[in-house]
Amino acid sequence: MPLSPEQEAEIEELRARRAATLRPVSPGLEAHLYKAHPVLDHGFVRVIDYMGDDAAIVQAARVSYGKGTKSVSNDEGLIRYLMRHWHSTPFEMCEIKLHVKLPIFVARQWIRHRTANVNEYSARYSILDREFYIPSPEALALQSTQNNQGRGAPLDPEAAARVLEILKADAARAYDHYEEMVDRIGLARELARMNLPANIYTQWYWKIDLHNLLHFLRLRADPHAQYEIRVYAETIGKLVADWVPMTWRAYQELRGGAVAVVRQALGCLRRMFAG
Amino acid sequence: MPLSPEQEAEIEELRARRAATLRPVSPGLEAHLYKAHPVLDHGFVRVIDYMGDDAAIVQAARVSYGKGTKSVSNDEGLIRYLMRHWHSTPFEMCEIKLHVKLPIFVARQWIRHRTANVNEYSARYSILDREFYIPSPEALALQSTQNNQGRGAPLDPEAAARVLEILKADAARAYDHYEEMVDRIGLARELARMNLPANIYTQWYWKIDLHNLLHFLRLRADPHAQYEIRVYAETIGKLVADWVPMTWRAYQELRGGAVAVVRQALGCLRRMFAG
Amino acid sequence: MPLSPEQEAEIEELRARRAATLRPVSPGLEAHLYKAHPVLDHGFVRVIDYMGDDAAIVQAARVSYGKGTKSVSNDEGLIRYLMRHWHSTPFEMCEIKLHVKLPIFVARQWIRHRTANVNEYSARYSILDREFYIPSPEALALQSTQNNQGRGAPLDPEAAARVLEILKADAARAYDHYEEMVDRIGLARELARMNLPANIYTQWYWKIDLHNLLHFLRLRADPHAQYEIRVYAETIGKLVADWVPMTWRAYQELRGGAVAVVRQALGCLRRMFAG
Amino acid sequence: MPLSPEQEAEIEELRARRAATLRPVSPGLEAHLYKAHPVLDHGFVRVIDYMGDDAAIVQAARVSYGKGTKSVSNDEGLIRYLMRHWHSTPFEMCEIKLHVKLPIFVARQWIRHRTANVNEYSARYSILDREFYIPSPEALALQSTQNNQGRGAPLDPEAAARVLEILKADAARAYDHYEEMVDRIGLARELARMNLPANIYTQWYWKIDLHNLLHFLRLRADPHAQYEIRVYAETIGKLVADWVPMTWRAYQELRGGAVAVVRQALGCLRRMFAG
Repeated sequence: MPLSPEQEAEIEELRARRAATLRPVSPGLEAHLYKAHPVLDHGFVRVIDYMGDDAAIVQAARVSYGKGTKSVSNDEGLIRYLMRHWHSTPFEMCEIKLHVKLPIFVARQWIRHRTANVNEYSARYSILDREFYIPSPEALALQSTQNNQGRGAPLDPEAAARVLEILKADAARAYDHYEEMVDRIGLARELARMNLPANIYTQWYWKIDLHNLLHFLRLRADPHAQYEIRVYAETIGKLVADWVPMTWRAYQELRGGAVAVVRQALGCLRRMFAG
Repeated sequence: MPLSPEQEAEIEELRARRAATLRPVSPGLEAHLYKAHPVLDHGFVRVIDYMGDDAAIVQAARVSYGKGTKSVSNDEGLIRYLMRHWHSTPFEMCEIKLHVKLPIFVARQWIRHRTANVNEYSARYSILDREFYIPSPEALALQSTQNNQGRGAPLDPEAAARVLEILKADAARAYDHYEEMVDRIGLARELARMNLPANIYTQWYWKIDLHNLLHFLRLRADPHAQYEIRVYAETIGKLVADWVPMTWRAYQELRGGAVAVVRQALGCLRRMFAG
Repeated sequence: MPLSPEQEAEIEELRARRAATLRPVSPGLEAHLYKAHPVLDHGFVRVIDYMGDDAAIVQAARVSYGKGTKSVSNDEGLIRYLMRHWHSTPFEMCEIKLHVKLPIFVARQWIRHRTANVNEYSARYSILDREFYIPSPEALALQSTQNNQGRGAPLDPEAAARVLEILKADAARAYDHYEEMVDRIGLARELARMNLPANIYTQWYWKIDLHNLLHFLRLRADPHAQYEIRVYAETIGKLVADWVPMTWRAYQELRGGAVAVVRQALGCLRRMFAG
Repeated sequence: MPLSPEQEAEIEELRARRAATLRPVSPGLEAHLYKAHPVLDHGFVRVIDYMGDDAAIVQAARVSYGKGTKSVSNDEGLIRYLMRHWHSTPFEMCEIKLHVKLPIFVARQWIRHRTANVNEYSARYSILDREFYIPSPEALALQSTQNNQGRGAPLDPEAAARVLEILKADAARAYDHYEEMVDRIGLARELARMNLPANIYTQWYWKIDLHNLLHFLRLRADPHAQYEIRVYAETIGKLVADWVPMTWRAYQELRGGAVAVVRQALGCLRRMFAG
């Protein structure tokens, strides 16, 4: 369970508060606000705030004085036009802020996306919790023989058991030693943390505009992405679908999975033509 | 008057619409939403949307599950601490979207701030309005004799009259020719626009996070900034004061005008010590 | 002629200076260094400096201690692999610095590419030269009837003559008035410049990494880009071909023109399938 | 020793190669090129490439056709002027590329500086070496009682010995298990790495412009920065001093340490005035 009862209560308190606003509101995303969507064994994604909706994209593209929209079908057409021709600036006019809890080795891939704002929980200032990502047995796989940076066939049960035994024992020992160094010896937290393995969980607030978020999703929900970040991308994708449904449809059709398949076919054709 | 009756009506319609949200709301900024704050003779600044408030900065700094705030005085203390120690990431967690109408020569200075999102009215796609910035006589000044990139003493009335005569006549003629080329000859708009002078108005949607906005204001509300961009910065500064009052107070005291004065004094001292 | 004899002499002086370096050198680009490649009637592109070559991309991709290269064919294969799979970071490891002279309306499109460094000639500090972009008659075209932001059929000779007459007369008058305001009246330069039309030339130093430059070229050398910026992109493309020939070949084949054609075909197919 | 004999030989080979260039050359930095400057127990900083020198800053600030310099004293004066008035764009015109080997917990702080290009050694693709940062006994300190995110008094020898015993044993065991999982079991590398602690070394190519590098140094060479990143910043600072000596002097005097002291004094004064 990723959340403590106190944290659940804090979230409930936030969801009970309701205020009037003149700003555009996305009903689909309001339904998710503050709630923790579980990912992996202890992780989650929470929407903390957002700005804009499908109509805001249209409004920005038209540099409009009012709502900017003419009719729903017009709006969808314009959004598809913008997506098809890589007019990225109107999509940058929407923004989302997430609270994410994730293993450190996932965080290190994630942070490579530089056009975003991040506020991470500080292990210099605070003490990390005893929470480690331990893969489910099905997630354990052999090094791929085709893809130098991927995984292939699943591990046999015995090997999987041995890996899980190692991961659990090392995590427990590392955390015991972390506690000993911080609590009993009084070692500075900024030093003690160096002993903790990369599957310990951290958390951060992460804010990004819709254009850059779609780029993040395109790379991280891709089948070549590591499974442990892909499940975060997939969770966020569902939130985006509820936030800006027109944009999500246009993205799926013009950039997302289906297109990737066609492109692969195109690659085959190209190689055929080349002999 | 910068707005047409139709545009006023569109704004009124937006301000009449009100919806419930679970997101943080800034009452101070809601009062400004969509309204056009006039700047120069035909320009304006309008707040189109925003994300976050003072409490959201605190919440992000604490990577919090709930509101993140403990008490109002605690919050203000933390904001001052963050400002003093240049912890910029929590301030990046607030975002504002403005609709700005401004002369092109001002737009060219403005756009140098790269960490922002912009959607400009397209003069390839659309026809620009007959609106030019004509300075008030008091704004006309001689080249400064001390500052190679500033203005000095005011022009005498006769010289000012001549300048205004030139600016008005050239603007009128340029726009007549623009109309002739676009309407009568049918010249492509992307070509016809090249004849228009730099004091014609353009407009854009501009979105920026609070940290980068404060940096923009520090440079552009500075006495060394050109008057015509400074008045935009001052207008935006008032909006920020109503949006995130604690942050604005901390900024004013720790980075803004007062500090600049002290720094100047410091520069004198330094030169004294150096002999 | 874009350059004065003094400027030509300065360039010759730079090209006469030669020093030893331990850094990677691109012979193809050294041949271009400092020279002005003319664009439009008064514009140019000059390479001022660069960092890296094809081998540097390979070296960075391998996080290598030495040259990073194994054999030429290996290098080219790796570069194609990186290009095909959108591994952009190794291409970011090369950098180029250009001196560009260009009309202001082109500069305003150009600056929308934010991931670059710019130092522009200041019209607050200095006086602009009497140089305006006057299109050649063949470049004058009617507004496109298909593309709302493009040009279509050429103007008939009479209409073209009238447009050129307007552009030349208005430019001359605007510059006469600029001189009168700056020289005779002494008006501050930051004010006087507002009367100058968008076809006056400005210039800047522009620095960008290779990945972002290829993105710039993809958008600006595209047939939908305005002719006046496309000719700059094409000029830069030729320089890139001489700088990093392997990367340019991979880009051309995997991202550039040929691919665009195939993609258009793909769009047709998609619409056919959709009925 | 951070380098293997093979790596030393590769570096020697690079330093033996010398080519002619028309570009500006910084003799001070050429002397450092490729050499590994040791930092911590196994880390290093190596300069791989650079672009520009002090004169290039002046040249960019003047948007010059030639060298841009008038005299050495003029150049230094202009650089000081630019530094004092926060004219950052000319400093962005210089670029440096480093190869850095550093513990993962240092890398995670470092990467927060987003305006830079990074290519990291991939632990999905490759196997990490058995190299861990083990602090020297003098670097081990108690949690600070004044600064919630810093360290205070040194550990007594017995406590220090216990900490080192933990760090060494856990690192050895984690690496043994990593080898077992990767080599004997054949677990995918992208999974096996999650068991490795944050003091294991990684390495990357890191490229940044001079303006952003000075900002990095201001924050990371600061006494409040964690010791383990500060030593990297100090090493880089010495390289910058040899690369662009005028800029470094101006930075030191106008932004660096001395100014920080004066500012602290100013803070005291401010509190005194406030009562």
